[in-house]
Amino acid sequence: MSAPREADGPIALICGAGTLPLAVADHLTARGHAVLLLPLQGVANEDDYRNRPHTFIRAVQLLPLKRALRNADCRDVVLIGSMVRPAFWRMRFDWDSLKLVPRLAAAFRGGDDHLLRGVAKLFEQQGFRLVGAHEVAPEILVPKGTLGRLQPSQADRDDIAFGLAYLHAARQFDVGQAVVVSGRHVLAVEAAEGTDGILSRVAKLRANGRIRSKGGVLVKAPKPQQDRRFDLPSIGPATVEGAAKAGLSGIAVVAKETIMAEPAALAAAADRAGLFVIGEPVGAVE
Amino acid sequence: MSAPREADGPIALICGAGTLPLAVADHLTARGHAVLLLPLQGVANEDDYRNRPHTFIRAVQLLPLKRALRNADCRDVVLIGSMVRPAFWRMRFDWDSLKLVPRLAAAFRGGDDHLLRGVAKLFEQQGFRLVGAHEVAPEILVPKGTLGRLQPSQADRDDIAFGLAYLHAARQFDVGQAVVVSGRHVLAVEAAEGTDGILSRVAKLRANGRIRSKGGVLVKAPKPQQDRRFDLPSIGPATVEGAAKAGLSGIAVVAKETIMAEPAALAAAADRAGLFVIGEPVGAVE
Repeated sequence: MSAPREADGPIALICGAGTLPLAVADHLTARGHAVLLLPLQGVANEDDYRNRPHTFIRAVQLLPLKRALRNADCRDVVLIGSMVRPAFWRMRFDWDSLKLVPRLAAAFRGGDDHLLRGVAKLFEQQGFRLVGAHEVAPEILVPKGTLGRLQPSQADRDDIAFGLAYLHAARQFDVGQAVVVSGRHVLAVEAAEGTDGILSRVAKLRANGRIRSKGGVLVKAPKPQQDRRFDLPSIGPATVEGAAKAGLSGIAVVAKETIMAEPAALAAAADRAGLFVIGEPVGAVE
Repeated sequence: MSAPREADGPIALICGAGTLPLAVADHLTARGHAVLLLPLQGVANEDDYRNRPHTFIRAVQLLPLKRALRNADCRDVVLIGSMVRPAFWRMRFDWDSLKLVPRLAAAFRGGDDHLLRGVAKLFEQQGFRLVGAHEVAPEILVPKGTLGRLQPSQADRDDIAFGLAYLHAARQFDVGQAVVVSGRHVLAVEAAEGTDGILSRVAKLRANGRIRSKGGVLVKAPKPQQDRRFDLPSIGPATVEGAAKAGLSGIAVVAKETIMAEPAALAAAADRAGLFVIGEPVGAVE
């Protein structure tokens, strides 16, 4: 983890959905960094960028992106915000990126890690450097300890340890970053459906009686081999709402290796819903 | 694996949903065994039993069950057919089983294995013996090799090996028996939602573009520590239909450790849908 030097010029933020990109921009500005905002067309919310200088870009149109980065004398690039993995056939390629299609297609065939590593390599081959949002703005990382007022019970702590152990065992298969555990029983494992998907599934299975147990914990952890520059797990107020609808008693993530969106709103949502949110010490299981 | 001796009296089949219990009854009858059919009220289809002697029983009402077993001089009991795990609060207890509630509740708190081991123990304490359907009717087990006309490709074989390796690594967590793999990428992991649940999820994620890859394999394997007497994975024509809707290229299970319902209809459904169904040799991964 090393913050880029001032001499490198402004830091470019390629912004996905949500408010996290703006929080990162604010943290960087407060620290005296110049920031180049590049919200993704069709992904980022236009209204959020109305009052800040920005240039909208399209995914996989490299030419305008390269031009914007070079005009601003920008070497460091951060990918931040929610990026629903785009369907390959939905992308609109320009001439420059068309030449990269075979390599992009290869990146798409693997798991998410493979894809992201492929994208990072492409950036580096163009002379840019992909850095993690948390490397330039460590304020966005979940700290150790609870975020709201509530603490996990001993049963919750058992479920957290069980979930972390499972995620550790599954790490080599590039499968999800999240699991729901209740009474040392795995209720749901995340793969392609995402964290929102497993939370709404648990809510549904509880409503129709397929899951009878109460409580349970959403446990998230980064896969050890993933490139932590741009694929850390993240939580936000919406995660708390999903966990509450699923009848869970709390959320556990790995401290310093999980990004949080809107920490104040997140803690308030947790207190309101009666859930705990805890950052577990790094390496609790490994 | 030892077939019960004739001296033990008839074999009782506690019958869940589907036609598998009737197939087991036919195999036993063909081998000269007497059979006592005990379909579960509200689970087994009444019409299926109209032409055979039977006694309907209720889940967790032990007194009528014990009476039926003792009247028939029956010691060996087989649990067979699809049993949707009943919601604890939905069960109607009789006086005799009410005494068992604390122990049943303890069994319910664990994973599925724990529950089934608990039920087996209860039966044994009452003087009965719980035997696996495949122990008395090995004809219901998937043989080694393909069931229909189609064979897996080399890419499918890679996905099968990847899926079996994942299930092997996840075995100690008492989590699902099935996984969907495509291009060595885990698309879905089964937990509380069941195999039908992961197949319909993959179908949906493909329809909405969250999964872009094509093909893929449903891989099922028994959890090594599970009690194989009454919790082997199973497949049937409906599994093939679900896999076809999910856009998969086939289904791989562990030969001799997977139960198949309606093998002829299963193979016909696979051929019709253009899917392979293969029994992998036991211990392909362990």
